Amino acid sequence: MEYPKNLGLCTDLYELTMAQSYLYEGKTGTAVFSLFVRKLPEKRNFLVSAGLETLIKRLESFKFSDEELKYLRSLGKFKDDFLNYLKDFEFRGNLYAIPEGRIYFQNEPVVQIEASLPEAQILETLVINTIQFESMIASKAVRSYLVAKGRRLVDFGFRRAHGLEAGILAARASYLAGFGGTSNVEAGRQFGIPVVGTMAHSYVMIFEDEEEAFRAFAKLYPDNTIFLIDTYDTVEAAKKVVKLAKEGIPAVGVRIDSGDIVKLSKEVRRILDEAGLKEVKIIVSGGVDEYKIKRWLDEGAPIDAFGVGTKFITSADAPYFDIAYKLVEYEGKPKYKLSPGKKTFPYKRQVYRYYENGKFSYDEVVRYEKEKEGEKLVEKVLENGRLLKELPSLKEIKEVLMEELRKLPEELKDIEKHAEYKVIVEESYG
Amino acid sequence: MEYPKNLGLCTDLYELTMAQSYLYEGKTGTAVFSLFVRKLPEKRNFLVSAGLETLIKRLESFKFSDEELKYLRSLGKFKDDFLNYLKDFEFRGNLYAIPEGRIYFQNEPVVQIEASLPEAQILETLVINTIQFESMIASKAVRSYLVAKGRRLVDFGFRRAHGLEAGILAARASYLAGFGGTSNVEAGRQFGIPVVGTMAHSYVMIFEDEEEAFRAFAKLYPDNTIFLIDTYDTVEAAKKVVKLAKEGIPAVGVRIDSGDIVKLSKEVRRILDEAGLKEVKIIVSGGVDEYKIKRWLDEGAPIDAFGVGTKFITSADAPYFDIAYKLVEYEGKPKYKLSPGKKTFPYKRQVYRYYENGKFSYDEVVRYEKEKEGEKLVEKVLENGRLLKELPSLKEIKEVLMEELRKLPEELKDIEKHAEYKVIVEESYG
Repeated sequence: MEYPKNLGLCTDLYELTMAQSYLYEGKTGTAVFSLFVRKLPEKRNFLVSAGLETLIKRLESFKFSDEELKYLRSLGKFKDDFLNYLKDFEFRGNLYAIPEGRIYFQNEPVVQIEASLPEAQILETLVINTIQFESMIASKAVRSYLVAKGRRLVDFGFRRAHGLEAGILAARASYLAGFGGTSNVEAGRQFGIPVVGTMAHSYVMIFEDEEEAFRAFAKLYPDNTIFLIDTYDTVEAAKKVVKLAKEGIPAVGVRIDSGDIVKLSKEVRRILDEAGLKEVKIIVSGGVDEYKIKRWLDEGAPIDAFGVGTKFITSADAPYFDIAYKLVEYEGKPKYKLSPGKKTFPYKRQVYRYYENGKFSYDEVVRYEKEKEGEKLVEKVLENGRLLKELPSLKEIKEVLMEELRKLPEELKDIEKHAEYKVIVEESYG
Repeated sequence: MEYPKNLGLCTDLYELTMAQSYLYEGKTGTAVFSLFVRKLPEKRNFLVSAGLETLIKRLESFKFSDEELKYLRSLGKFKDDFLNYLKDFEFRGNLYAIPEGRIYFQNEPVVQIEASLPEAQILETLVINTIQFESMIASKAVRSYLVAKGRRLVDFGFRRAHGLEAGILAARASYLAGFGGTSNVEAGRQFGIPVVGTMAHSYVMIFEDEEEAFRAFAKLYPDNTIFLIDTYDTVEAAKKVVKLAKEGIPAVGVRIDSGDIVKLSKEVRRILDEAGLKEVKIIVSGGVDEYKIKRWLDEGAPIDAFGVGTKFITSADAPYFDIAYKLVEYEGKPKYKLSPGKKTFPYKRQVYRYYENGKFSYDEVVRYEKEKEGEKLVEKVLENGRLLKELPSLKEIKEVLMEELRKLPEELKDIEKHAEYKVIVEESYG
């Protein structure tokens, strides 16, 4: 495949067939669509807003070039009027969002698009695709952050991500969710995330023996020597690290990628400490997720850093959200569905958050115009297609989330026990 | 983010630090790395090879421009010699693969890269990322194909894919795995896959009533009127479809997206049949996966087509593979690990398949040069970086898989019961 330069065809066909019909029927009034998660996954007590910057960039690229229009024409469904409409398409509507890094919950409109009906409709697929993925990854990654209690986390997931794009976006989402670095070089370049990594098992295997491999590596990277010590015998390799240190070849850290992590990390720590190498860090990778981090630390494993990969980058225990982009208002009138399990709430909305003793107490989702006492979460980000203020940097977003976590009630931070936060949704049916 | 034009930085940092050290140490002999799945996910009895075309395209783009080199220089780890090496980097090695559409199993080298050590190492992340995803999606999608027993399947998953790229690649993977179309317009353009789709609930809700919505749609798309009938009351909507047909507004199909699918589809079928509308198809969507398709059809639901979305496009019950890219040979010498659970087999390999009564009997994985009686699965695809023959078209790949499925033993086609196919791996430790 080629990654499309113009994203206009990054949509489902029905968005276009509907849009053409709307234009044909004169249904071009202002519509509001709301993106929200109906129900949180069982293993998520809260979600982290992420993906807004990507969405805004994608909206800028959501155009139809002659090539795309030619393809649409070939389908035999679209008339010249509509193709001309698409030729000039650019997003000219308003976008409201809960900013990146803020915590949100079920039934809260993380993104709302207010635009002419065909315009708002055509963007459905793009909006869901963008926000679901990054929010899902940030919401997964932050769970590792919560249990790591200050230990360093790095993203090792690129290879198992669902595509290159997913890997790059996930590096960003995990950094804002508390990770300290990534192995993904492209993400490092694009987002200024610190990049990390030293050697794989293949490196150790290429040399005649492990010690020779370590020596060769240290020669080239004297300031960044993290030795992978589990290729043959982890404990023996730790002794080699000590031997090298005595010869003046110090290690910054050792990485263990397999085996009984609690037992091995304790043994390796003891060997290092007895040799006076207290500053040498122990890094663990290989199937790491928040459940393992918690268990290992609970069992006293002296681990300084974790390489977190596959399970976070696929959000393996919740690889999708029950997320929907629903029409809630058209020409000022409420729109909603009452179907069981698929209930929607009409109107453009504001979310107010209330605090008690500095912690989140509950949220209230009300009509946008309604003024209440609480803290407003929803901000107007685009007006007539234009950014109202500069977007925050990735570091600023990370700080927003860190501040949110300080205010998040403790029971919601539990990675194993389900707890539900109170969200009151005003039932306005106009 | 921006999708990178050059993919050279789509790698993990350690691939580059290792490669630099290899060059520095003169370790530039020929290496073979093998990509294989150690153990199939519990719910997969076989895997479908997919992603090779994407991999070859990505290899062509795996270059380092001045911008990428500037970034690497800024990291302070790389010397001019190495940056010059990267500047000229292009894949000049050999690539061996089990072709797309073929069925493969545990411990079988779906891709093998034979190249100078630094070159083969640098590609690790890219190779795993590419082949895992497409093969995983094809291997998931084909399960729906197996239980749908000739009913039409279409990809409705784009919105819940892990990024736009993942959605586009998944459309391709599902088409080769037996799906008949996709809602993803970009995938339609790029791969020539039939695109499908008509209306969403929002469309029905925009009009004063359901019947008006149906009329408006049929006016514009008289040859492609699939009415979404579950917005309010599915049975009542089916009666409206009958009424419209009597007025000369025929439907091609009706789509049901929620509710008790078995009950509703039977009731709707009865209403349509009694009105003589036997040719009107019933299409079902909404949380569809192979388990539901099987159950609904077992219970006699008269469904003609399925829109399959979220669960296949995220491979929700197995969102990653236990897949590895391992060094197996260097300068003709065997390389392997014996660690429990992470055992690897040395040397470049061929897979021979044996048949009994026209069905797969067992596979044998032997040293590449060894001549055996069975059918060879591994083909040399690139030689010195060049394609040896044109790649098959997507339709040809689909035919390959359809032929494979005819030869696949019945017990491996069961989507619920685990069955393990016999793969004999020759243990050559040189």
